Amino acid sequence: MLLQAIKTSLKSAGHHPELFKILDYAVLPAGKLFRPKLVEAIALDLGLQITQDHLHLATAVEIHHAYTLVHDDLPAMDDDQYRRGKLSTHAAFNEWKAILAGDALLIHSFNELNKIKNENHRFLLRFFSWATGAKGLILGQFLDLGAEGQASLKDIVRIHELKTARLIQVATVGSYLLTKNFTYMEFKDYFKLGNVIGVSFQLLDDLNELTEDTVSSHEKEINPFLLYSQDSLNTLSKCLEGLYNILEKKKLVHTTAMMKSYLEKNQKSFMENKEILLGHFDDDQFKKKLANWITNFVSL
Amino acid sequence: MLLQAIKTSLKSAGHHPELFKILDYAVLPAGKLFRPKLVEAIALDLGLQITQDHLHLATAVEIHHAYTLVHDDLPAMDDDQYRRGKLSTHAAFNEWKAILAGDALLIHSFNELNKIKNENHRFLLRFFSWATGAKGLILGQFLDLGAEGQASLKDIVRIHELKTARLIQVATVGSYLLTKNFTYMEFKDYFKLGNVIGVSFQLLDDLNELTEDTVSSHEKEINPFLLYSQDSLNTLSKCLEGLYNILEKKKLVHTTAMMKSYLEKNQKSFMENKEILLGHFDDDQFKKKLANWITNFVSL
Repeated sequence: MLLQAIKTSLKSAGHHPELFKILDYAVLPAGKLFRPKLVEAIALDLGLQITQDHLHLATAVEIHHAYTLVHDDLPAMDDDQYRRGKLSTHAAFNEWKAILAGDALLIHSFNELNKIKNENHRFLLRFFSWATGAKGLILGQFLDLGAEGQASLKDIVRIHELKTARLIQVATVGSYLLTKNFTYMEFKDYFKLGNVIGVSFQLLDDLNELTEDTVSSHEKEINPFLLYSQDSLNTLSKCLEGLYNILEKKKLVHTTAMMKSYLEKNQKSFMENKEILLGHFDDDQFKKKLANWITNFVSL
Repeated sequence: MLLQAIKTSLKSAGHHPELFKILDYAVLPAGKLFRPKLVEAIALDLGLQITQDHLHLATAVEIHHAYTLVHDDLPAMDDDQYRRGKLSTHAAFNEWKAILAGDALLIHSFNELNKIKNENHRFLLRFFSWATGAKGLILGQFLDLGAEGQASLKDIVRIHELKTARLIQVATVGSYLLTKNFTYMEFKDYFKLGNVIGVSFQLLDDLNELTEDTVSSHEKEINPFLLYSQDSLNTLSKCLEGLYNILEKKKLVHTTAMMKSYLEKNQKSFMENKEILLGHFDDDQFKKKLANWITNFVSL
């Protein structure tokens, strides 16, 4: 249903065959659909039917996510030649086509959001532009690319919040805003939920990077677990604790199931590549702690 | 008032000093404020007070315009080092900063539009994303950069419609949509108005290019007046005729005054550089026609 909604929306995005081909390439085949699935899980947890509004929101977030990947991969930005197991958009077409396609997807995400009929749609749109703009996601990418010298753990977490968590918060908060009467107290819970999901998953990604056979020297230089081993692990633990607390407090059954599955996938990868992972560290005490943490961190 | 609204809006766009500096650089000092002034002129012609909604619309259009300039100037696009008498944004800062600043301005234009309180705001937002997206402005830039071999006059006019007229239509149609009850018949008039303004002004620009001392060989290759002299002049005349007709039919006094001033500026430039302009053409009959046209084309 989610994938179908994204495909249907994309078909309406453009009619010029060549430009459409690039938009299609940038969005499909989709990734894990993490953000759309989160919109859905929260709606179900709130006891709602999945409405057309939820599909618009889920689609807007996914298409916006696709735009960020297209622009982030550009030579002037992260300069990535591959994305989701195929050539990145600029590598498959060219640079100006990728810039324009990214712009078009960005605009289309707003168009999709504008279709939401719920009475809170204006507030949702405001939240969306705040989360994705120069105070949110864009600032995150700006700080990430502009970082000079060694970033502090605080800086790294801030970038994770802005660059990753903000769009996830659009999924959590946005889905909540599609309930009829929202309260600021609950709003804050879903805001926090999106933040802890975003930051902990990005830190889990950082840790997962160290399970791979080859870690580039650049990746080593900026990996928070190599820079600040114990502090990073503490931050991740605290973040996950925050996640578990909110999920329990709000009794979000569907969201919990989704998070559990995601965390267990990470755990499996840590377990299977334990030797490689631990091999990055010298401190025996930390190694022991990390080994212990790996086996116990999923408590959902 | 218009400039103040743009400045105020921009101040709320971001709080990070370095990123904000780039956004500010890309928007200010502003150009002619052609689009915002058009929003204002049409509002006055409709007998309306300039409301906060008009200022939001005018600001959104101008900030969106600024984003298109930042991205169009990029090395991978038109590769322009200068804009409005100063270094273009990527030349003054760097490429990734210009891409991100452009994205941020684009998002901010939607945020500004979302502030409009008028009951037609949803329709306006839909029109805005249509006009600026993969069926509008973006497609225009895509076709322009992708053109291979010699473009037909029809193709050139199409690109002018998409790349230039669409955002001008947001100003004309958008301002009209801020009247309480809009009809589709009138909507079509303002749609047409924006189209003839956009296309005729872009063709006037093409002609004006030929009054300059130095025209690059690339500019010569794509200038419609050098490629299709008589047909281009006919198209421009027809377009201006369409403009005069709508202005008269709808009795748009303020808009007429604005257009008259703009056209007379063009005329002055044609007159002052008549020899250079005519020197581009060999056909004596066409030269005579053009010389005659220059003295007579402003009939407002």
